[in-house]
Amino acid sequence: MEKYDVIVVGGSAAGLTAAQTVRRHYPDKKILVIRKEEQVLIPCGIPYIFGSLQGPHENLIPDGAYEAMKMDLRVAQVVDVDRINKLVKTNSEEFVFKKLILATGSFPAMPPIPGHDKQGVYAILKDIPYLNELQERLKSAKNVVVIGGGFIGIEISDEIKKSGVENVCVIEIEEHCLSQSYDEEFCTEMEEQLRSRGVNIYTGSKVMSIDGNDRVESVALSTGKTIPADLIILGIGAVANADLAKKIGLRIGLTGGIVVDRAMRTSDPDIFACGDCAEKVSFFGGKSSALRLASIATLEARVAGANVFGIKRETPGTVGVWGTAIGNLAMGTAGLTEKMAKAHGYNVIGAVNESVNRHPGKLPGASKIKIKLVFEVNSGVLLGGQVRGDASAGEIMNAISACVLNRMTAEQIAMFQSGTHPLITASPIAYGIVNAAEAAIAKMLKVKE
Amino acid sequence: MEKYDVIVVGGSAAGLTAAQTVRRHYPDKKILVIRKEEQVLIPCGIPYIFGSLQGPHENLIPDGAYEAMKMDLRVAQVVDVDRINKLVKTNSEEFVFKKLILATGSFPAMPPIPGHDKQGVYAILKDIPYLNELQERLKSAKNVVVIGGGFIGIEISDEIKKSGVENVCVIEIEEHCLSQSYDEEFCTEMEEQLRSRGVNIYTGSKVMSIDGNDRVESVALSTGKTIPADLIILGIGAVANADLAKKIGLRIGLTGGIVVDRAMRTSDPDIFACGDCAEKVSFFGGKSSALRLASIATLEARVAGANVFGIKRETPGTVGVWGTAIGNLAMGTAGLTEKMAKAHGYNVIGAVNESVNRHPGKLPGASKIKIKLVFEVNSGVLLGGQVRGDASAGEIMNAISACVLNRMTAEQIAMFQSGTHPLITASPIAYGIVNAAEAAIAKMLKVKE
Repeated sequence: MEKYDVIVVGGSAAGLTAAQTVRRHYPDKKILVIRKEEQVLIPCGIPYIFGSLQGPHENLIPDGAYEAMKMDLRVAQVVDVDRINKLVKTNSEEFVFKKLILATGSFPAMPPIPGHDKQGVYAILKDIPYLNELQERLKSAKNVVVIGGGFIGIEISDEIKKSGVENVCVIEIEEHCLSQSYDEEFCTEMEEQLRSRGVNIYTGSKVMSIDGNDRVESVALSTGKTIPADLIILGIGAVANADLAKKIGLRIGLTGGIVVDRAMRTSDPDIFACGDCAEKVSFFGGKSSALRLASIATLEARVAGANVFGIKRETPGTVGVWGTAIGNLAMGTAGLTEKMAKAHGYNVIGAVNESVNRHPGKLPGASKIKIKLVFEVNSGVLLGGQVRGDASAGEIMNAISACVLNRMTAEQIAMFQSGTHPLITASPIAYGIVNAAEAAIAKMLKVKE
Repeated sequence: MEKYDVIVVGGSAAGLTAAQTVRRHYPDKKILVIRKEEQVLIPCGIPYIFGSLQGPHENLIPDGAYEAMKMDLRVAQVVDVDRINKLVKTNSEEFVFKKLILATGSFPAMPPIPGHDKQGVYAILKDIPYLNELQERLKSAKNVVVIGGGFIGIEISDEIKKSGVENVCVIEIEEHCLSQSYDEEFCTEMEEQLRSRGVNIYTGSKVMSIDGNDRVESVALSTGKTIPADLIILGIGAVANADLAKKIGLRIGLTGGIVVDRAMRTSDPDIFACGDCAEKVSFFGGKSSALRLASIATLEARVAGANVFGIKRETPGTVGVWGTAIGNLAMGTAGLTEKMAKAHGYNVIGAVNESVNRHPGKLPGASKIKIKLVFEVNSGVLLGGQVRGDASAGEIMNAISACVLNRMTAEQIAMFQSGTHPLITASPIAYGIVNAAEAAIAKMLKVKE
């Protein structure tokens, strides 16, 4: 029976990052990763296998790190853990561990819609044969309905449309697509972009039933509309896969994730959890958060991995930073939107700056950037920011994330020392993050008068 | 005689931003900007008038803000200031002020090279007729020599080569171009890029003389080489234009700039200075800094403008954040390079991460990113970072700037909450800023063992 210092269950973003972090912090420890997949899909890349890429095989997390960082890998299903004797059991083997890290991921959420079990209804499983089958079916599909207008839903819709499907519809229950990610003025821009590329969008629409005989034929909406569908894709979010943790008696949280402390320890101090399977608390107020993102997973993995033999790191909770892109239009968000911040009880001011990402604007590649920052009025602390632009919106979002994480005030951001260059950023006079902060300060001065 | 609450002398990046900041913070004050140029060039855009743009007229700072923000504008040369009676004097008019902001900018540095006054030697003056003349002369030039391989020098060389000049040479006195901005491994990449585009580079070479009869014909290098030249462009930096300040008796600093405190007040408490004309102190250690950048100018302008009627803001000194780009290769730097940090006396560790800016790497637009972070070993505090990549390197540089400004440690950066997306950033597993911090931590653990 082989003995390991650390065993990681799961080999996607969280599991691989946790193992790498253990290796970096404890160069001499023996590490095993057990995962159930022969090859691991890049989770956020799945939408692109339907259009931009040739298929799932072009969207894999490389396995080079295992050899390079001297970590063992087993492809097997973990069926049980003996917490007393510190054993991990697969169907055919047992391994001894000192410390265990659970990174068992998530499942797609399944909506309680009548007919969701009909043939032709697909979720986005992280499973290569399943996705290959879906891709094959898409080739002959004429009417595809995507249920859920979050970022996975809109990205998949666009890719499917791009691949040549005649009718692609997105159904969103809220008033706008992406309303969990952006304030309305950003959501409507992305909706316009998606429509301009041929995708139909039905917002404020609940799917009441999925209809047809054995196979799906149409969906009925709360608005009374019926939409033909020979294929349905569900994109309504993810729920923690805490099955193993439940079986072995670990504490489970409000959103169904494995309860962890700030050091990513579960209720068993020798077992850590990270990624989609772990319960999250918000950076803002500390309540449970249902956000499931690969970037959160890797943060938690870096905390868990560093802590296995002595607590070195504690997470301040989930800020929530993510982006999306449709064609040349990219958007990013870090922290709270104005709507979310108000719902949270904060007294907020939002301020917007629009600029151009080159200076002068006649230089090649020039396009518009919009940045919105949201501040708490009394303290002036930044609660979140949103950006719309070209590909560099992704890194503007990360610059905003750094400001949120450091709880910078509008005054501090107004004195942000940005670097600028004609060919790659906005002008220093117009730089968006700074000017949005100045606009917020001007508004706050009026409020205080 | 017209009376103003605030008069700003100078209308480029610092002057315009200072005036806008006064307006935002003091909505009812009467503001006048006096500048000597009919139209103001975007300073960092000047290299691009020789290739990518049609000429200086495509590289202007728009004047729309004056009307939009109700600020008066006079085009005139300020010849004197009466500090007792608070008068600004031009050749034909006098204006009364309560507070004065000097934003008189800089001149190109002139090297003490014999022959620098020959015909055919040009500096980069921010002067439209002069630049038009230079552009005209370039049309018939065959051999152009650019003295100085800093960012202005390399950008101009590339643009001139692009415009069709047969031989373009850059002469740099240091071992590498851009050695004030990047560590060697970055400099050599940019040199390779420049060479691959047809520009000749002579490093470790001092220009001993500029030779010819009335007109320049060649330059003689310290290496013994003689290079033919029918046109020479000087790109060796800028020196403060503090002429007016000297004339009216304000204190002048070590690098020749107007001495200011952290609130951007000069030695006269009713006179502020900002931008290239002002003396700067470094964020690192507080010594005088000779850096002159438009982004520093606008920061100082936001401090000066907010402070005119009561001190609201103080600058922590100049971090130094800037970028450059040649073709598709962009680089950014924030704070100290490893070499600069060592020269400063810090005990440092530098760590590099290389990744791809898309995930999976087969997605369109994928290219390599390299990030180097430099930390002080004892405290773990980030002293600076460098990035090489595509256009989004500009905003990665700004995310690093936020980390430097907040004096984040390697541990804090390892827990940075990045946002990622397949089409616009690196993978969350490979995200460069975070992984460079982890690599530095692994190195520091070894040092402490």
